[in-house]
Parts: sequence; C-alpha cells; structure tokens
Amino acid sequence: MTIKVAVLGAGLVGMHFAVGLERIKSGEIEPYGVPFAKYKMEIPIEDLEIVGFFDVDEKKVGKTVYDVALESLGKVLPIPRSLSDVQVYRGLHFKSLAGLPFKARGLEEEYGIEGGIQKFLEIIDDIKPDVVLNVITTEKASPLGSHEAFEKAISAGEITASQAYAYALLKYLEKRKIVMANFIPSPLANDEGLVKMYEEKGGIILGDDGATGATPLTADILEHLANRNRKVMSIAQFNIGGNTDFLALTVPERNLMKEITKSSIVEDILGYDAPHYIKPTGFLEPLGDKKFVAMHIWWKTFNGLEDELVVNMRINDSPALAGLMVDATRISAALLKRGIKGTVYEVNAFFMKRPGPPGSKNVSRIVAYYNLLEKLKNLGIIS
Amino acid sequence: MTIKVAVLGAGLVGMHFAVGLERIKSGEIEPYGVPFAKYKMEIPIEDLEIVGFFDVDEKKVGKTVYDVALESLGKVLPIPRSLSDVQVYRGLHFKSLAGLPFKARGLEEEYGIEGGIQKFLEIIDDIKPDVVLNVITTEKASPLGSHEAFEKAISAGEITASQAYAYALLKYLEKRKIVMANFIPSPLANDEGLVKMYEEKGGIILGDDGATGATPLTADILEHLANRNRKVMSIAQFNIGGNTDFLALTVPERNLMKEITKSSIVEDILGYDAPHYIKPTGFLEPLGDKKFVAMHIWWKTFNGLEDELVVNMRINDSPALAGLMVDATRISAALLKRGIKGTVYEVNAFFMKRPGPPGSKNVSRIVAYYNLLEKLKNLGIIS
Amino acid sequence: MTIKVAVLGAGLVGMHFAVGLERIKSGEIEPYGVPFAKYKMEIPIEDLEIVGFFDVDEKKVGKTVYDVALESLGKVLPIPRSLSDVQVYRGLHFKSLAGLPFKARGLEEEYGIEGGIQKFLEIIDDIKPDVVLNVITTEKASPLGSHEAFEKAISAGEITASQAYAYALLKYLEKRKIVMANFIPSPLANDEGLVKMYEEKGGIILGDDGATGATPLTADILEHLANRNRKVMSIAQFNIGGNTDFLALTVPERNLMKEITKSSIVEDILGYDAPHYIKPTGFLEPLGDKKFVAMHIWWKTFNGLEDELVVNMRINDSPALAGLMVDATRISAALLKRGIKGTVYEVNAFFMKRPGPPGSKNVSRIVAYYNLLEKLKNLGIIS
Amino acid sequence: MTIKVAVLGAGLVGMHFAVGLERIKSGEIEPYGVPFAKYKMEIPIEDLEIVGFFDVDEKKVGKTVYDVALESLGKVLPIPRSLSDVQVYRGLHFKSLAGLPFKARGLEEEYGIEGGIQKFLEIIDDIKPDVVLNVITTEKASPLGSHEAFEKAISAGEITASQAYAYALLKYLEKRKIVMANFIPSPLANDEGLVKMYEEKGGIILGDDGATGATPLTADILEHLANRNRKVMSIAQFNIGGNTDFLALTVPERNLMKEITKSSIVEDILGYDAPHYIKPTGFLEPLGDKKFVAMHIWWKTFNGLEDELVVNMRINDSPALAGLMVDATRISAALLKRGIKGTVYEVNAFFMKRPGPPGSKNVSRIVAYYNLLEKLKNLGIIS
Repeated sequence: MTIKVAVLGAGLVGMHFAVGLERIKSGEIEPYGVPFAKYKMEIPIEDLEIVGFFDVDEKKVGKTVYDVALESLGKVLPIPRSLSDVQVYRGLHFKSLAGLPFKARGLEEEYGIEGGIQKFLEIIDDIKPDVVLNVITTEKASPLGSHEAFEKAISAGEITASQAYAYALLKYLEKRKIVMANFIPSPLANDEGLVKMYEEKGGIILGDDGATGATPLTADILEHLANRNRKVMSIAQFNIGGNTDFLALTVPERNLMKEITKSSIVEDILGYDAPHYIKPTGFLEPLGDKKFVAMHIWWKTFNGLEDELVVNMRINDSPALAGLMVDATRISAALLKRGIKGTVYEVNAFFMKRPGPPGSKNVSRIVAYYNLLEKLKNLGIIS
Repeated sequence: MTIKVAVLGAGLVGMHFAVGLERIKSGEIEPYGVPFAKYKMEIPIEDLEIVGFFDVDEKKVGKTVYDVALESLGKVLPIPRSLSDVQVYRGLHFKSLAGLPFKARGLEEEYGIEGGIQKFLEIIDDIKPDVVLNVITTEKASPLGSHEAFEKAISAGEITASQAYAYALLKYLEKRKIVMANFIPSPLANDEGLVKMYEEKGGIILGDDGATGATPLTADILEHLANRNRKVMSIAQFNIGGNTDFLALTVPERNLMKEITKSSIVEDILGYDAPHYIKPTGFLEPLGDKKFVAMHIWWKTFNGLEDELVVNMRINDSPALAGLMVDATRISAALLKRGIKGTVYEVNAFFMKRPGPPGSKNVSRIVAYYNLLEKLKNLGIIS
Repeated sequence: MTIKVAVLGAGLVGMHFAVGLERIKSGEIEPYGVPFAKYKMEIPIEDLEIVGFFDVDEKKVGKTVYDVALESLGKVLPIPRSLSDVQVYRGLHFKSLAGLPFKARGLEEEYGIEGGIQKFLEIIDDIKPDVVLNVITTEKASPLGSHEAFEKAISAGEITASQAYAYALLKYLEKRKIVMANFIPSPLANDEGLVKMYEEKGGIILGDDGATGATPLTADILEHLANRNRKVMSIAQFNIGGNTDFLALTVPERNLMKEITKSSIVEDILGYDAPHYIKPTGFLEPLGDKKFVAMHIWWKTFNGLEDELVVNMRINDSPALAGLMVDATRISAALLKRGIKGTVYEVNAFFMKRPGPPGSKNVSRIVAYYNLLEKLKNLGIIS
Repeated sequence: MTIKVAVLGAGLVGMHFAVGLERIKSGEIEPYGVPFAKYKMEIPIEDLEIVGFFDVDEKKVGKTVYDVALESLGKVLPIPRSLSDVQVYRGLHFKSLAGLPFKARGLEEEYGIEGGIQKFLEIIDDIKPDVVLNVITTEKASPLGSHEAFEKAISAGEITASQAYAYALLKYLEKRKIVMANFIPSPLANDEGLVKMYEEKGGIILGDDGATGATPLTADILEHLANRNRKVMSIAQFNIGGNTDFLALTVPERNLMKEITKSSIVEDILGYDAPHYIKPTGFLEPLGDKKFVAMHIWWKTFNGLEDELVVNMRINDSPALAGLMVDATRISAALLKRGIKGTVYEVNAFFMKRPGPPGSKNVSRIVAYYNLLEKLKNLGIIS
C-alpha cells in the first residue's frame, strides 16, 4: 500500500528525509535513526513515496528534489536519481523567511492570498499526499484558536506560513483525509481550536516541534535523576551550529519559540521547575549541520552531597529529525486508515518536544517510547 | 512498624547509609537520593532502625557506628549522636580483604570456621534484623550452586565472605524470616542454587551489585539510542576514584568482577554486543569518594552519518548506593511481610547492575523503575 | 615597606581580594592563585595593606569591609577580623549600575559632579593608596582620548564610573604618584590620551580587563595549536554563572564589552581570524560564583584530517581575579618606585585580556608570563 | 638540496608521513600540522625525499610504500603515485613484535645477528639517508650505556630493535654523517653512553618518544596552572584507541614504557609531583587511529577554593606525529650540516615527550617551541 508524502520546506531536514528514505528503499543503507525499524510495522518503509516538496526560496522552487539535494548534500552523500521525478513546488510564504538572507516568494505573493491558497490546494489535489510533513524554518507564532481567528488572520496576511498551510489543508479534508505533522515549534497541535477543527473534519494533526537534538536526551537524563529522587539544582544546555536553523535562531523572537518548547520538559519531568538555561545559543557557520551541544546538570544526592554531570555532543541535526519523520509518517498513515482523528497524544509524546493537544505533559522519551509501542501493538500497527 | 536493619561492611557506603538515614529520620535533611521517597510507601523511612554493623577491620570492630562514622565522614558531615547506640560487630572474613592494606580478622579466625559462623548467628539472633544489607569490599567469587558445594567450600575455608554470610543467614531462616540484599558483584542472587534454597526456606535474597555510578546512566543512554534505532559503534567508559573500592579494584581479579556486571548491560539493552570498554580504570587517592567518570559513545544515525556523545561526571560514589539501600530495605521488608520468597526480579532489575535470578536480562533503569513502581502499586506497597 | 591599596568596587572580587590577602598575611592559607608567589619579590605579600573600598550600593556604603565580606562570603569562608578596620566609602556612580537590581547612589549624586569628584579625592588623600584597583561592574565605555573630551564628558555626566575614577586620580597625581590598575573591560589603558596623560603626570595606568576565566586558557590552547601549525576551523566558548557580573552581562551592551576583549585573542595568537563564538552566555543563579565553561575547538591537522577538543570547567570566578590583583599590586608598586610611568605592556600582557597601550597585541599567557618574569628579573623586582 | 629520509616502521605513522609529505610537495594540501611551516626554513619541505622504509611484517616487506599505504590509508586518503618508487625493506626484528598478532621476520632471523646487521647497513649504504626516523611499535627497553653492553646485548640477541638500529647506524657514521631521530619511548637519546658514542662519531641522535597526543597539551595546561601558582591536587588522563599502538599497549610492559615518558612532565613542569594517573588506558578497535582522550585536573586556587577542568579530545594519533617528523627531519639535517653532533636538547624538548640527554627536564611545549625557534633563528636555520 503506497503512502504518499509531501514535505513543506526543502531545507536540510527535508533533503535528508528524501535522500535517506530513497537510500533505505533501495537497500543502500540500513534504516538507522528510524525508531521502530526493528519491529514489523504495518506499513513498511518501502511503501513511502515522496510526491512533492513546497518551498519559497527562489533558488529551489521549480527544481527537482534531486537538484536541490545535490546542491545541499551532494558533497557529503550520494543523491539517488529517483529524486529527479519529484518537484519542489512554490509554497506559501507569509513572510516566514523575513530577515533571513534568502530571496523568497510565496504563492500568495504571486496570486494574492485567496488565490495563493487556492493554488496550493490545486497542487495538493494533484499530488494527493496522505501525509504532509512540516519542516519549514522556525517562525514566531501564537495559537489562533477559532475558525474566525484563522479567517481573519489569513485575510489580513497576519498569519505564519505553518498556520496558513494547516488551515488550507483543513479545507482540503472535505475531499480526502490526510495527516499534517508539524515538526517545528509553531503551535498547531497545541492550538486547541485547530485540533478540534481537524477532528471535526476527520483529519489528523500532529505536533509540535520534532524531538531531536539535545532536548530528548536531556529529558531522559532528567527522568533518570528523578527516578532516584535527586534534587536538580540547575541545568545549563548550550547549542551551537552552522545550519539555516541556527541562523534563523539568532533572531530573538524565533529563538524564544525554541526556548519555550525546550524548557517545558523540566517541570513536566522533574515535578518542579529547576532553574535552567536551555536555548539555542549561537550560530557558527563552520560547524554546519553537525552542532555542538554542552550541558551541565548538578544535583543534591543522598546525605546532602552534590554531584555533577556534563554532556558534550556533536550531532547531525537534520538527519536525526529526518529519521523520526519516516516513522511519524508510517504511523500517521496507519492511524488515519483506522479512522483516528484530531491529534494523538501518544504519538506526539514520543516524536515532539511539545506534544499536543494543549495542556499535555511531557514525559521522558523512554517512557513515551514504550507507551507508544504499546499503543501501536494494541492497534495492531506493530505486530 | 519498626524494620530492623543490619549492614555487612562498615565502610563508606555503610557509614553514609547510617548517617544519612538518621539525618533524614531527624528531619535534618531531605530524602534526596532515595528513589521512591516522593511516593507514600507502606513502610516510612522513619520506621527503619539500624541494629548493627559487621566488619573485620581491627580499626572498626568493637567500636560504635558513631565513632567509625566520625572517623570516615566527620570532616564532611555532622554525625548523629543516635549512632552511638549501634555496634560494629566482628564479622566473617574468609580473606575478603587479602592483599589490601587493612589489618583484618574475622570470627572464623577467632573461633574456627564452624564456631565463627555459630557466633555470627548468635549476634544476629541477638539484634534480630529483618533485612541484612551486604556492602563489603568487592571480592572474587563464582556461583557455588548446591547445598553440598556450599558446605564443602565453607569447611575448606574456600568461600568468600559474602557467600559465607548468605549461607549462614540461610540457616537462620528456620528461626526468623529475613531478607539478604547483596550490593556487591559476588553472585548471590545470581547463584541458582542459593536462590532456590532461600525460596525453600521462605527468605528473600536480592542482588547483585548495587546499580549506582556510571553504569545505570549508561544503561539509560543506551536505551535512548536504541529507541531511535541508532547503531552504536563503540562505548568507552572510564572511572577513577580514591576510595577503598577503587583501591580494591586495582587488584585485577576484583576488577574483573566489576567488569562483568558492568558490561552485561550493553547487549541486554542494545540487542547486540557493541564493542565496549567499561571497567573501573584506576585509583587516584585525592579524588576520594567523589569519582571522575568519562564516557564516549558514537553511533550511526539516519543516512549513515555519525554522531558522538561524551559524558563526564563527578559523583559521590557511596551516598548514591546508600540512598538506594534505604528503599531496597523498605521494599524488601514489605515483600517479606507479604510472604514473598526467593528473589524478586523487578526489585533487582532496578536496584542492581546484574539482576538475579541467573539468566535475567538487564533493562534500562527507567523501564525498570516504572516496572517496579507498577508492581509496588499492584502489591499495595506504594499507594 | 607598606604598600597601601584601595579597591573600587566592593563586590565578590574585591571581597575575595580582601579576605584572601588577610588570610595569606596571617599564614592561614597558602598563596595559591598568586602568580609569582613562588619567586622572591621585592615587595612581599605581607607588605600589602588595604586602606579602603569604594562602592555605590547603599547596602555596602558606610559599612566595614568585614561586614560586607561576611554578608557575601561568610557562608563559604572565615572572614578575618582585621577587615573591621577598613571602610567601604561611597564612590562615583555615573549610572554604572543602571538597569541592575541595586539601590545605588554615588558621590556625584550627593554633592554634584564637581563636588563629588572633590569629595572622592579628599578620601583618597586621606587614605593615601599607592595602588588603586578597579573591579566595578562591567559597563559600556569607549575611549575618550583627550583632556578636553574627559572634561566635557564629566561635566555632562556622560562618562562611565571607571573613566571618572581614572580621570579624578589623574588630577591627584600632582600630589602623589599612584597606580591605577583596571581589571574591567572599560578602555582605560586602551585610551591613548589617558595613557599619555598618566605618563605626563608620572602615574601608571594598567589594564584592561583582568585575564581570568576561560579566555586565558583559550589563549594558551590556541598558542599550543598554532605552535603545531594546526588550522583552527572554529572556536565556540560558552560561559554561564550566577554572580552579579553574569547578571550584568545579560544586558546586551555590557555583554558586548566582554565579547570584544575576549575575541581579540583569536587573531592575535593564531595569525588569522578563525570563526569563533566567544562571549558570556547566560545567567543561572544557583551556579553562583563558580561558573561553568564549555569550549569546542576543531582543526585540520597533518594530511588534512580533523581533530576535536572540548574543554569543560567549573571555576571560581572572583578568587581567580583576586589572586592576580595581589601580584599586579606588588608589581605596580615596585614599578612606580622605579619611576616608571604611563602603562607597561609586559604587565598588561600577562594580567589583562586586552593589554594596553592601544594597538598592543595579545600573546599567549605562557609567553606573556615568561616575558614578564624576565622583565621583573631585569628590573630586580624578582630576584 | 635534497634531504634523504629513511623510516623504521611502515605502520600508520610512517604511512601518514609518506603520504602527507608527498601531498604537500605536490601542492595538493597545506602543510597543517608541520610546526614551523609558517617560517622560512633553510630546507624547504619540498627538499625532503623518502628513500626507504624498513619493517618486519611479512605483509609489508618487499612491497612498495604505495601498496602498503593503499592498504592502510587508501580508504581515507588519496595515495600519491610517487610512493611506488619507494621500497619497504626487511628490517631488524629482535622480537619487537612478540605477542602481537603479526607474522614478523627480521633480517637477523634471515641472516643471523651479525649478517642481519651487515645486510641492514648495506641497504642503508645503498639508499643513503641523511635522516633515519624511528617509528616502530612501542617496545620494552632500558638504557644499555656502554659500547660493551651494546655488543654483548646484540650478540645475545637480547636487545630491542630500536637499540639494534641505533647501534648499527652508529657504525655507519664512519662512512657518512647521519641523524637518527627516535619517536618511540625506548631510551636512545636518554642512553648516556649512546649519546656519547654518537657525539664521538659525529652523528646526531634525537629522542625520545614523539610529543603528540594528550601529553603535550597536558604539559601546556599544567604550565598555565603553574604560571598562576594554582596547586594541582590530582591529574587523571585516559586514552583509548584502536590502532596497533593501542593494541601493543595492552601488553603491560609496553604500557609501562609509555607511562614513564608521559608522567615525567608532571613534576618537571609543576615543580612537585602532583598525584596523577596518566597512561594509555585501553584498546577499542572501532576507534581506529582517532583516539578518545579524557582528562580531569583540579586544583586549589586563591582563598583555598577549588576549581575543576575536564578535557575531552578526538585526535588522529598518527598524523599528529607524522607532521612533527617533517620538521624534525628538516631541522636535523640543517643541524648536521652545521657539524652539530651528539644530541640537541632544544630540539628534543619540543619534539619529544622525554627529551634527551638523560637528566634533561621537560618544559612546557610553548616554552620549548619558543626556545627552539630562537635557537633556529640564531643558527640561521630559520630566517
């Protein structure tokens, strides 16, 4: 059963997803980094088919994914020829790249707001994705809540690209059931109204902010400490990298979006809000996509004594997320098939830094993994 | 309901246990480092009463725990006066300190083997512990298996102190039901015969090797990686400290005991035996009880790329274990009360590096914690 | 020969200087952290006498140094009674604490600008320091250059406290020769005009920004790499702490002052401007004065291969600088005695992050140390 | 002026030297990792010509350096064709590879001891090297001292390969003046008698143990601390790697050789023997030539407070040494040309972990670098 996937954002994450998926499908590489690959899942990786990317960068729009991937990853990885058949379509912009050094132009800038959204839905109807994955650049966003608020914000052009995409796809649900999975911090699965609207229309919306990088590991380390009732005195976590995402995060209001999703783990897991400094820290171009992470945690242990832990990492930022996207897609499609709608906490709890629906708690990743595994087994998605 | 506790080994771990427990009981400190302190447990910490220590070091035997604690911890911590009422009795030696710079003499050296064991049981019958905790120095040991093998080994004096204690307490079970919890690497809960004998006699034996230090965290980090299907290429874990345990581990055969319990986590958790170097690495006296740990792990992630993780820690070795002992004692006593006998995997899986019974698998600590929590709730031990 | 010292700023650094100096003088502690203590220096540490502190914090002004030290360090260190004889005088403010959570009031706010400066000089004339050490909170400042510019800035109240102090002391030089040593980033020894004026009047001005923390070590590590002709690809250096200085550095323009002095080492030592991110990164209160530093450096080595280095530190921020101040004082006084005037590059090169006079290059600390040692030997200051 | 170089040991270090040198000469890569490459040196890198390698591994003897390099480095680096013209000759063995998994056979096993040495000298006379670099596997060795002791040891076959090579080349000095530079721990430049004999015959012997890896950086960090009179409380330094050298160092007596050369820096630089644990720690094959280093240092600073430093590195072991060899060769040849003989402390102090002649002190690397630079300028070798 072929599952069709469209990706919003033809950046590094999207390209790793496309290249890695094709290489796994062709048997060239092992599915490392794909969480549930060791289990037998209803939808095998081989069944995923990428049907299109959307972007607003003039250097990418209109090209094939092969060409874009060659440009961004060609020095590091072999680019599968099969990606020549997939297009990068022009998507919605809504100033999502404002202030960053890209020449960007969205459908709404070409056709007006209504026309642009119309145009987007035409392409969607043409390529017919089952799952739409959002990996555009981090943007500043707040939940909108109601149908009216969305309508108003869109008409005024005062909406983020992610929200515009989510709202446009909502309209499309009348025609075909799809999933939108949001891997960036914008509150989509954390927008109560939006989740409700997806539920009413029979679609699924997952999110928010893909759980990769240092934060998931921090979550599990905090759980480890909490399990021993150690009293965490402070947490410092630094991140520095050289990819577009780190560049975008030098803009304070984009950075704040990340800080919010990253920090929520502390109180949720420890049960108290240990003093912490957790945020993307800087941009250093030569590091490229392989970021440097430094983390310091100290705590009081038995008998009032103090221990210290330092973690340093060099991790490839984009492939980590791309690997998650493979399984988020497989699971989403299987859930959709079963008529599940709205959002699914257990999926979000493992895959996302700030799991929706709003009000949900973060649990440690290991706990989330086993909870999800159990749910997937109960649903027969994993056998 | 008072629970009486005796401790084998009046070293740093034992002293931290005694001092910390009394300080918690008096309200002087919070029960940090006591895993389940945040839950309401059947037996509150306040109900634990230390009734005696056993040691063979001539500098400790015959003194009060207060005096011994003052000597070893007095510069760092206030020593509760209440420990003046507890004795350090002479215990069994069986050359367990051979090769280390201590003047040691055991009951069996005083009274002959049979007489020494007899004497030990008399003291036990006098102080009437419900739970006996073993924290003597790491020794070289192999499972003995049968009643006959134990008898033969004891007669010949070819037995380790831990095994001699375990076997002596087995005899005592005819009189009163007790728990022996083994926090050192010697295979007691991993001795199939011994576990069976405890089961037959209605006692509980828990073990082996208390899960503190770098290894439990390594277990959870490996689980974190396994949950993402990352392919671990190698693991290096160094430990260096300045306490007696590190001194003992400079003796190769003692070191090997630790290496075995520490290494078993790799294959159990990852599902394959990733190349690893995990062992106590050296003795450096000025570090004292606060060891330095360095760990390097690298793996293949999505799209065949490679990530790296380094962990460095400064951790107080003895208090970490002492904190676990508090809850192992509370749980043990509650299990005993319920008539449970033999060994209890779920308890061992969380508290021990090499959980018995033999053949048991290590799971990550976080998983073990929640499994145990569930069991304790089901049994009504935690409400 | 008694050398009298006054200190501008009664914060942690000043208190560590006072407490540590008295404890060394009384033989209570070893002079660890005092660079040249192992050599025989003309002026022994015992000859230093603290004659006064200046501050504008209402909680400190008018108290004895004993009382202020007790407040800030009393929980950590024994405070010498001898500090009861030393006063914290009201100093100059010029809004140097604006935006920080202190109730501050300077002499100029009490007596008007001219009157305030007059008052300051009266106190100076009363306590008669040979050396004045500046350790007030980091402030935003630019070189002023000429006598006229200073006059104009002072009259307008548009001057920083450090510059006002330096200029006031300049006037005092007509009466007695003194040294002003500036351990904060404000450009005093890097103000060409100011250095010239000190030279003309026969005083010495040293600075700027005491070389402690991560940056001096970074300098020596970069020198180490440069000595092997390794090509540094990037440098990331994070700092987080919980003292007032870190709090002040959350104000962007104060942070920038630090960034400038810290970054200048890269090109000076490597010979090229390797991409770097070196700046105070955040404020995390529980860390207190013991900051956490993380540093990542990677380079190309022989045959085009790449190596990586990570440094993590927990260092007491204030005592490190206080230790340097002891020797900067001893050396300053000996230089003054020899009639040396203006600024002294060799002294600045070792003690300061941004050595004056303007246009001077940073060299690695080890090189600077031996250059200074040689100069001190040549001058007979060290024998 | 062509300088001819022969290399003893066709392992990774030798191959990196050969490959890197040729790549630099052809302009393919920059001379990163070659310490004095940024200065104008009398003998440019282009003048170095490799004339032969010696080894005893049957898999290498008789092949071209191109073929051997292709085997060991071909997956990582392009191998220059020019190495097809250089042979790997059979060298002396004297059981230097005993206990390691190689099939080895030396000239002395082929032709008898006297015949083997004769044969070696014939090849030397044929290829006429100016400089012979020793990079064979670490072996257990003690200084022999006198002519007689060497003769006796050789006749009995109770000599190490390095000593046999050094002694054989000594005989050759009657014919042509050459340099032997010893980059492994065996005491050659630390053998008083041997140095004297080289001096008498007009040759140069440099050594011992090339200063690469963690130890030179440790030296500079210790100097940095000593410059501030910080009191080092303990030093722990771990090393783990997967190349042949780490495999060899799992043999305790080989490990001891390294431990001695590595540890000597502590007292030499600090002025007191701070407690330390510095030795190669383990073999972990997947790490290959890129070792993992972890180092922990803590000290008392001003006012008796304590700081901590942790260093972690991933460094390519062999290229680091290969880069040093390039300049050791250029400098050696220039010294030889000037008629200098015996050994040269300033050269050893920078290039070697245990600089000869015996009794010499280690200084920090940065100091050694500038001392050497000055000497080279004074001699006109660097202009």
